[in-house]
Amino acid sequence: MAEGTARLTRRGLLVGIGAAGGAGAMFAAMGALGLAPTGQDKEFQAPRKGDFTLTGRGSASVLILGAGVAGLTAAYELGKAGYDCTLLEARQRAGGRNLTLRGGDRLTETGSTQEVGFGEGVYFNAGPARIAPWMLTLDYCRELGIPIETFVNNNGAAYVHTNGQTVRARTARADTYGYIAELLAKATDEGRLNRRLTAEDRERLLDFLTRFGDLGEALSYSGSPRRGMARNPGILAGLELDPPPGTLSEILSAGTGRAITADFSYDMAAPMFQPVGGMDRIVTALVERVGEDRIRTGVQVTKITSLGDGVEVEWQGGKQKADYCIAALPPHILARIPHNLGPDVSTALAKPTPVPAGKLGLEYGRRWWELEDRIYGGITETDLDITHIWYPSHGYHAQTGLVVAYYNTDKDAELYGALSHEDRKRRALTQGKKIHGEKFRQNVLSSASIAWERQDHIKGGWARWPVIDSSFTLLQGPAGRVYFAGDWLTRLTAWQAGAMESARHVVTQLHQRVMKSP
Amino acid sequence: MAEGTARLTRRGLLVGIGAAGGAGAMFAAMGALGLAPTGQDKEFQAPRKGDFTLTGRGSASVLILGAGVAGLTAAYELGKAGYDCTLLEARQRAGGRNLTLRGGDRLTETGSTQEVGFGEGVYFNAGPARIAPWMLTLDYCRELGIPIETFVNNNGAAYVHTNGQTVRARTARADTYGYIAELLAKATDEGRLNRRLTAEDRERLLDFLTRFGDLGEALSYSGSPRRGMARNPGILAGLELDPPPGTLSEILSAGTGRAITADFSYDMAAPMFQPVGGMDRIVTALVERVGEDRIRTGVQVTKITSLGDGVEVEWQGGKQKADYCIAALPPHILARIPHNLGPDVSTALAKPTPVPAGKLGLEYGRRWWELEDRIYGGITETDLDITHIWYPSHGYHAQTGLVVAYYNTDKDAELYGALSHEDRKRRALTQGKKIHGEKFRQNVLSSASIAWERQDHIKGGWARWPVIDSSFTLLQGPAGRVYFAGDWLTRLTAWQAGAMESARHVVTQLHQRVMKSP
Repeated sequence: MAEGTARLTRRGLLVGIGAAGGAGAMFAAMGALGLAPTGQDKEFQAPRKGDFTLTGRGSASVLILGAGVAGLTAAYELGKAGYDCTLLEARQRAGGRNLTLRGGDRLTETGSTQEVGFGEGVYFNAGPARIAPWMLTLDYCRELGIPIETFVNNNGAAYVHTNGQTVRARTARADTYGYIAELLAKATDEGRLNRRLTAEDRERLLDFLTRFGDLGEALSYSGSPRRGMARNPGILAGLELDPPPGTLSEILSAGTGRAITADFSYDMAAPMFQPVGGMDRIVTALVERVGEDRIRTGVQVTKITSLGDGVEVEWQGGKQKADYCIAALPPHILARIPHNLGPDVSTALAKPTPVPAGKLGLEYGRRWWELEDRIYGGITETDLDITHIWYPSHGYHAQTGLVVAYYNTDKDAELYGALSHEDRKRRALTQGKKIHGEKFRQNVLSSASIAWERQDHIKGGWARWPVIDSSFTLLQGPAGRVYFAGDWLTRLTAWQAGAMESARHVVTQLHQRVMKSP
Repeated sequence: MAEGTARLTRRGLLVGIGAAGGAGAMFAAMGALGLAPTGQDKEFQAPRKGDFTLTGRGSASVLILGAGVAGLTAAYELGKAGYDCTLLEARQRAGGRNLTLRGGDRLTETGSTQEVGFGEGVYFNAGPARIAPWMLTLDYCRELGIPIETFVNNNGAAYVHTNGQTVRARTARADTYGYIAELLAKATDEGRLNRRLTAEDRERLLDFLTRFGDLGEALSYSGSPRRGMARNPGILAGLELDPPPGTLSEILSAGTGRAITADFSYDMAAPMFQPVGGMDRIVTALVERVGEDRIRTGVQVTKITSLGDGVEVEWQGGKQKADYCIAALPPHILARIPHNLGPDVSTALAKPTPVPAGKLGLEYGRRWWELEDRIYGGITETDLDITHIWYPSHGYHAQTGLVVAYYNTDKDAELYGALSHEDRKRRALTQGKKIHGEKFRQNVLSSASIAWERQDHIKGGWARWPVIDSSFTLLQGPAGRVYFAGDWLTRLTAWQAGAMESARHVVTQLHQRVMKSP
């Protein structure tokens, strides 16, 4: 799941990306773990049928536990070479957390079921919802022929709501940059930085800062058209004069700074993308390539036994043997299944902790965010328990549309998750009204919500390693004939791309082993 | 035309938007002109048939000179109330600078003709190509039922090429922000800004700067994953260690700062939009609503005479009378047509000067920018005479695609405009190779280029007022029974939205006059 919430809390959580300590600190940590970046599966070669026919070897049978994105990707890649894969999926459908809800769907959580009533063409990506252009996910979209479109991850017309105040994101940014530029420009101009800057540096810096902050002649910030305009320019030049920018102290205490840097990280930077029609187009395409007949749903694994010459997997009412097994389940789910893979594996599986994550989609009969707020896609950042409001990056100018009224994690997600759907909705409407006014509660046609920690056989938005240690490394390799796969085994936790990277990593290892076998 | 080039040179040129002097200076200038922002046509009411039937008045006949976006919009709005409009267009097609080229089109310039050979589905927006979400253009897309999609105006994966060096835009940004943050953070931490900051301000500022620059523990910038990664994160954390960031002096002297702020202005801020299938979808829809039979192409006006009870317009081989006239031609074209509107009008029309602007589209047989550079849409900024390279924001993952190899204005545009199409292409390929290497010259299937200053009856990308003075104000009102319309009569010069704003302004005036007439 592309965790939007993590944009505010990501630093330090997602080891390896945008960590707070800067590059140097991160690399030092990596070096200590023997994880200097030289390995990556960038040069992945999918297994081919020719690998067997040319060597006279036969392929192998593989039991894949979990038909989420990791399991499906592994089956898809192994299938290219003719491996005999069977996927065992505890849920009633493939895809795992890649879940797109549409009208007519039923969503069951521990203790309740929602009947999704969205209108024709309306969908809600309840799980992952955005793709960075460098991610493997986009390669698979290309390979599988899934059309993509832009996901708007940053929109200056959206709002920032902090400490009870709401401003446009562009206003927060213009004011912050304006005052920062002014502070640094004046210090530079007054010679306070002469120890660090040559005369040429100073001149160039002042030139940049003037542009960066839209400074006036005395290197002062006194507002800028970049803040937005009460009247848009037309015959006359428009300008938002009321209210003027607050003071530097006011801007700093408003606490909008985190929202400004929300998309600075490598994984969140614009442009981002989404499949046209819903994220589960990826699942549909993978299932089609893998073959629906290879996926057995409703099968809850009860035991995994690695044998000398294969693996045996048991479930209630059945069992199956295969040459190899790929366990592509969340670690906290896998940890509960009895196995003979040794105590180190058990210890390792117990380390990542599941993260609660929730979303609620509201279908409106009127796209008021476009008509009245001129918000076309993007995200409003808040310090409320809803954390974010997402506006749709598709279906622009349609009659109806779906807004994600919250996307939160951890404590906020637990708070909403514990409520009934109706209560989640009521609370989200009350919160959203603080930003958008009464219209946020009007024209709501239908809604659906998810609390991932309450989804059977998933039980979490994703799993977080408190620290990347030898347990992480241990599970990169097989335990006997059992391999492990999932986004949680990569530096792309919570991203589909992580599941795909991990699947490729395992496929490569498994195929090399088979090719070396006598 | 949405002038990309102006993003680098816009400051000070486009009076009223993002002007260099900050908001205060701009507003002072506006006040001096009596142009305080109170008027705008934001509350525009289109004329209605009921306006006449309810008052017993008849509508009027209107001759509209020029079937560009301004003329078409005026005819469309007047047509809603039943005005009898006739458009006289000197070119062979309606749309003016809103021009989308496709396979099979012929593009004639002074002295030459190009046969456009693009493949199926490939198009080249030779004129305007992007729309800001607050602009009227988007309202018309909604009203006319034209589907829109995101135009990627900012992509950190694109390049900045300055002083012979090429870096990713995200690298330039991360390094610049990193060092700025370090400078200001250290000055703050050392107490050098105590006069300007309270203890609380300082703490908040340091917190923000650490995020903003991705600073390390000693408030130092030593690189960041935001710069991009040589290997993307997967099983291992990826990081671009080679080359490390240059020094502060090196970053400042690289001159990439202008590219960083290129989309900061209100009109260029992400997200931007484009009609699906080509910008001329707007022209097609307007022509359909106005009625093709109302547009007479190939008609070059030779004289405009305002009479007591109407207007007479002459052209080679014909003339026509009407109650009113709207002159929706570029000022430098209109200035050459004899009229009886008085010397002040002549003086005013002579003031705006046409700006040369050029573009060249290259159709490639392979989307190497996606496959190899992971660039999905966006713009590479350069200090070369090509100024910009645009990557397409649509057709992602298709087999072929069209890159805009240059979009330049002023001297650079004149330089390319003076060449034959083949020579323009040769030069653009040589320049693009400096950034993208040999692949920029390979797999080119076809191409087309335009030099707007060489387009008959247009003769410029747009027209620029050296200063907004009383001439600008004069032409906002009619001269006798002749009204003036065009983007050049607004603060949105070079934007279609300006043409639309101006058309509405004139329609409102004209309709009010008709409604007041006896």
